[in-house]
Amino acid sequence: MRLGMQAVTIRDKAIVLAEHPDPVPEAGELLVRVRAAGLNGADILQMKGFYPAPPGVPADIPGLEFAGEVVAAGRGAERFEVGDRVMAIVAGGGQAELITVHERVAMPVPEELDWTAAGGVPEVFTTAHDALFTQGGLTTGERLLVHGAAGGVGMAAVQLGVMAGARVTATVRNEQARSQVAALGVNAIAPEGFEDAGPFDVILELVGAPNFAGNLQALAMNGRLCIIGVGAGAKVESFDLRALMGKRARIHGSTLRARSLEEKAACARAVERVVLPGFASGDLSVPVTATFPLGEAPAAYERFQAGGKLGKIVLEV
Amino acid sequence: MRLGMQAVTIRDKAIVLAEHPDPVPEAGELLVRVRAAGLNGADILQMKGFYPAPPGVPADIPGLEFAGEVVAAGRGAERFEVGDRVMAIVAGGGQAELITVHERVAMPVPEELDWTAAGGVPEVFTTAHDALFTQGGLTTGERLLVHGAAGGVGMAAVQLGVMAGARVTATVRNEQARSQVAALGVNAIAPEGFEDAGPFDVILELVGAPNFAGNLQALAMNGRLCIIGVGAGAKVESFDLRALMGKRARIHGSTLRARSLEEKAACARAVERVVLPGFASGDLSVPVTATFPLGEAPAAYERFQAGGKLGKIVLEV
Repeated sequence: MRLGMQAVTIRDKAIVLAEHPDPVPEAGELLVRVRAAGLNGADILQMKGFYPAPPGVPADIPGLEFAGEVVAAGRGAERFEVGDRVMAIVAGGGQAELITVHERVAMPVPEELDWTAAGGVPEVFTTAHDALFTQGGLTTGERLLVHGAAGGVGMAAVQLGVMAGARVTATVRNEQARSQVAALGVNAIAPEGFEDAGPFDVILELVGAPNFAGNLQALAMNGRLCIIGVGAGAKVESFDLRALMGKRARIHGSTLRARSLEEKAACARAVERVVLPGFASGDLSVPVTATFPLGEAPAAYERFQAGGKLGKIVLEV
Repeated sequence: MRLGMQAVTIRDKAIVLAEHPDPVPEAGELLVRVRAAGLNGADILQMKGFYPAPPGVPADIPGLEFAGEVVAAGRGAERFEVGDRVMAIVAGGGQAELITVHERVAMPVPEELDWTAAGGVPEVFTTAHDALFTQGGLTTGERLLVHGAAGGVGMAAVQLGVMAGARVTATVRNEQARSQVAALGVNAIAPEGFEDAGPFDVILELVGAPNFAGNLQALAMNGRLCIIGVGAGAKVESFDLRALMGKRARIHGSTLRARSLEEKAACARAVERVVLPGFASGDLSVPVTATFPLGEAPAAYERFQAGGKLGKIVLEV
């Protein structure tokens, strides 16, 4: 094990590469040599100072997901062996050569996935599965609307919706990306006037407050609006509670990052059980737009912020 | 059976007594001689023209609940016999000498309840049970806040919360009513500054939009805000979606009235199974503020609108 791992590092609201002490696995933890780590919107927010890492997580190393090889196990960690391929969501620190993770949060990497694809799986598929099914209660035959479907979570949600037998509509701003999303077998539409395409039993909001009024209008009776992304704004200016009451609808808000170990472990077990088999069956794939070596992380962050991407941007370590 | 029953009737946004044709039970329905019928906030809204009766319901006879004796049964109705004491929620028409109701929506009146009490049970206990448990998922040991606890639904919710082993806080504007609510074994407080009494796992909103910002602040992690009354206003001027996301909270809106027969029947079975036994055990009671004979319905409506009441106003037929 080398001393002084390289890691993507936030300095003065910008991305640099820097050396950090190698992490040491505590009881129940794995030490993992990271092979790939996806970028997420929260990394950008953290870089800009809006989304600080929770306690117990390296404050200056971003990265909410990774895939890599187990190189050591802490006391009592027994789920994996040295050399196993694992992937996980973490509250930070994923974009580094080494990371520690509690073994109960780690998932085995399906054989079908190479390192790059695996590095882009945990955050988006866990987020989408939790929002659509655990919270939203999406079930077969229901009508699902995914806002901002070209992004990582959106692409995961669209695929999971199709796999679940839901009737899926997706809004995609970029016209070229829209036709690629449509190729997944869904009704891909422009965001403008989406409310006329309803009603929808479940709406997954990955864009933000500007869609709120239209979402209330487009919800079906007993509809569920799951809000997990607000990049385009979080402030709703007007909310008529009667619209919610009349439809007996509900609104969920959620983030994964601040959840407890137990909650994240429960999410990981759910994803192992019902999502990962979808990669073997061909129902699911990981759309990767671009990859960058760890050393070119600043360029990867620029690419992420440029928008118009379809799926994931992944750092290869 | 007499021809031309008397019924509370809405004429020009006011309450009068008038004759109506006797209703005739269709297949599966009971004809019930009403003995008592509670007033509810929705009756006032309907009188004012804001809450029209759904299709299939007498448009001009208010009344969302009643208790009475079965006097005839339509084809195939087998759950009750002539002479049985029944009570039910209905979508309208309860404040009359006679009413028809589908047998699957009707519940037996517990022995412990006289007619007056029974007439005030169905709407408030069904509404409170559905909101707190079916939607809000309230469970023992959780912290419950009931806004507007002196009203009918509020008093039912407070009692159900205590019976469920929740730690109950209740806001009550009227000071005298507040001490009466406190006597139920809950923390009864003034509405001002309620957010400092939190956090709460479940909040039952019976007042309206003015509490919304405070509710978001007072919700616990994974909290549930159930909005079923908006008499003080329904328009929220500002809603920061991040507050909901950070708490992984959810907001439910609901009304009972427009639900399908199947849904109302399911509610009735739940109330029969877990709420009605509470009257025998002494956990639950029906606080009745005032009773009026059917012929004095206009005075009952005036009393209801005067506010400051504790519990139900019931018409005796």
